[in-house]
Amino acid sequence: MKPFFNVQTLEQVLDRAGALSPLSSVPVALDAAGGRTLAADLRAPHDLPGFDRSTMDGYAVRARDTFGAGESSPAYIALAGEVVMGQAPDFSLAPGQCARIGTGGMLPDGADAVVMVEHTRLLEADMIEVARSVAPGGHVVGRADDAAKGQVLLAAGTTLRAQDVGLLAALGVDRPEVLRRPRVGVISSGDEVVPVDRAPGPGQVRDVNTSTLGQLVRQAGGVPVSLGLLPDDEAVLTEAVARSQREHDLTLISGGSSVGTRDLTVQVFTAFEDAELLVHGVSVAPGKPFIWVRAGAHQLLGLPGQVTSCVIAFYLFVEPMMERMLGRPAQTFARFPEARARLTRNLPAAPGRESYVRVRTHVDDTGCRRAEPLFGKSGLLHTLTRANGLVRVPLGHEGLDEGAEVTVLLFP
Amino acid sequence: MKPFFNVQTLEQVLDRAGALSPLSSVPVALDAAGGRTLAADLRAPHDLPGFDRSTMDGYAVRARDTFGAGESSPAYIALAGEVVMGQAPDFSLAPGQCARIGTGGMLPDGADAVVMVEHTRLLEADMIEVARSVAPGGHVVGRADDAAKGQVLLAAGTTLRAQDVGLLAALGVDRPEVLRRPRVGVISSGDEVVPVDRAPGPGQVRDVNTSTLGQLVRQAGGVPVSLGLLPDDEAVLTEAVARSQREHDLTLISGGSSVGTRDLTVQVFTAFEDAELLVHGVSVAPGKPFIWVRAGAHQLLGLPGQVTSCVIAFYLFVEPMMERMLGRPAQTFARFPEARARLTRNLPAAPGRESYVRVRTHVDDTGCRRAEPLFGKSGLLHTLTRANGLVRVPLGHEGLDEGAEVTVLLFP
Repeated sequence: MKPFFNVQTLEQVLDRAGALSPLSSVPVALDAAGGRTLAADLRAPHDLPGFDRSTMDGYAVRARDTFGAGESSPAYIALAGEVVMGQAPDFSLAPGQCARIGTGGMLPDGADAVVMVEHTRLLEADMIEVARSVAPGGHVVGRADDAAKGQVLLAAGTTLRAQDVGLLAALGVDRPEVLRRPRVGVISSGDEVVPVDRAPGPGQVRDVNTSTLGQLVRQAGGVPVSLGLLPDDEAVLTEAVARSQREHDLTLISGGSSVGTRDLTVQVFTAFEDAELLVHGVSVAPGKPFIWVRAGAHQLLGLPGQVTSCVIAFYLFVEPMMERMLGRPAQTFARFPEARARLTRNLPAAPGRESYVRVRTHVDDTGCRRAEPLFGKSGLLHTLTRANGLVRVPLGHEGLDEGAEVTVLLFP
Repeated sequence: MKPFFNVQTLEQVLDRAGALSPLSSVPVALDAAGGRTLAADLRAPHDLPGFDRSTMDGYAVRARDTFGAGESSPAYIALAGEVVMGQAPDFSLAPGQCARIGTGGMLPDGADAVVMVEHTRLLEADMIEVARSVAPGGHVVGRADDAAKGQVLLAAGTTLRAQDVGLLAALGVDRPEVLRRPRVGVISSGDEVVPVDRAPGPGQVRDVNTSTLGQLVRQAGGVPVSLGLLPDDEAVLTEAVARSQREHDLTLISGGSSVGTRDLTVQVFTAFEDAELLVHGVSVAPGKPFIWVRAGAHQLLGLPGQVTSCVIAFYLFVEPMMERMLGRPAQTFARFPEARARLTRNLPAAPGRESYVRVRTHVDDTGCRRAEPLFGKSGLLHTLTRANGLVRVPLGHEGLDEGAEVTVLLFP
């Protein structure tokens, strides 16, 4: 049995992940842009809204004509026309004149403010009474108030939210350039594993990891490609990995957790030309047997076979790499909201490594949020489906006491 | 100008939303199940893993044979065979016998524990030395440890996470029943609005709301269907709404914010058979002009035309309805993580309504998180793209002071 050649800390692995390069960019349709990463700074190609625009129903005026107006001393202003929505007015206002305007309408030349209809009274067909003064610019969005031509509105690397997509629409950017999604080849291995649609015989279990990793990859903004459920056979694995290396950005093998399988994964990965073994064991639990081999611009990753360890290893190692490929920092648990809670029992520290303990939170009778550690034998899926979060016990820590306040990383 | 007929509180609107019925269920492929809502309780169709399984590489033993073993007084046990992965052993263990086994292997009859290979030494071809005792069940997952046949493992209404998808895979549920996604017809209206791919003329703006609402609907788990950008014309709007009512679950019209447009929306909605005007104005800012008409099982919703108000109104009213249709409580801001921060300046209270103020948070020199309110004229998109969250100022509140600690709802 070979030992891990040089166990690294999680921090060291994340430093390496931070050195990966972002992927290239592709244009996408606007209705597929939500959640994608903007590839370059967005500069306003023109002023927005591009014209002086009313924010109220009322009358466009020269503000000066309303100065001093009040309930007891209204101003009288002549009605010179009506602004048609979506058209430039074909008239301008002289002193003492106003024009009817709706919300979103374009101010005629000469006007610099809008009086709300609530503060006016139509006296006759061509005269209104104004009972309140308005300052220049009142109830008006100026032609460049939302954006001035050339201004940077969204920075490269922005994950596009609904309102950002709206801004792209407003500026006519209907095919924004976003970073390409990481393509991730997923291989499950293990001689005892059968496909999901087959009934396992004695000693067999179904392939849990392909579905689980597929969903994790999708959630992290990538495209999973299943390369199948493969036997622990060097030639078969080598062929699948070679195909993945040509077509994808990352390859994940989640093998059995036996030492033999891990050795086989290292052997297959390092046989590639230019292969460099970067990580072989990390001082973290779960996730210790993580393997990372770089082969050119492609990353070959070996994950634990037990699904509970596999999921946490994904969040610790794989998602930070994908974040980096998407132009963001190589951060763990990037999508996990956090909450503070008090432990319901002691958490022992694992010697020589930092550990992540599954917890389930609830609010107790006193309104205090509690985190209950879910212990259980290695590899039990139900501890992970019952959990709603993780608590980190740092490296070199003496453990955490019952009642201690901790940060819970909540599963997204 | 018609006043709002009966302004309601947000709470009243949410009570009504809570009375909506969940949608029907559909089967989906496992690789599309992530993020969907489980329609019925998941019961284990069989024990999981279904056999006594080793969690370590080592030797399957009768625990009793190791009792009292230690470094200075090892136990000697005869090697009776080797467990082949994925197969039931064709032998059983008699007292004093053991079998080689890998992680994930099936224990032979007679064995009740596994000794880790690290604590053993192979003396000759058919004898091992064991330097540590193991308790019954040690390093073994029992046949029903992960799930016992018939046990409820996931409750109806669960939003499926990666590990839940993994559990479905483990149990062979490759077409789980999930709630149907809400289908949402989206209509933009306004005579001054032009499609995104067209250059706006003087007095015109591009259609921002179709793209923005589309992304909001997708993010909330629905399927947006654009019904087009329509003029403020009763016959045209009526025809589009009628089509949406036949084909979808919800219809959203985001019109211009002018009173005339709002009146037109109410008129079009209430003309349908069985139409019932449930909400016409809510004491919340932004979002006050919200309109809700029920027509049978279909919900017709009028949203503000200004995109900033439209986005917040979506989170306040539409997403809670969609949550309910997906079998969960009608909750506002369901996907917003929260953070505590201190205000950088006073927030005035809006008289007679609760309000949601856009903020941008940063961490100051002292490590304190600050929330800076982003004021700006109604309808400015850039306040929403610069913002990373919202702060609620409750109804009847006197406003919030600079330095006050507030909860920030962070945009998802």
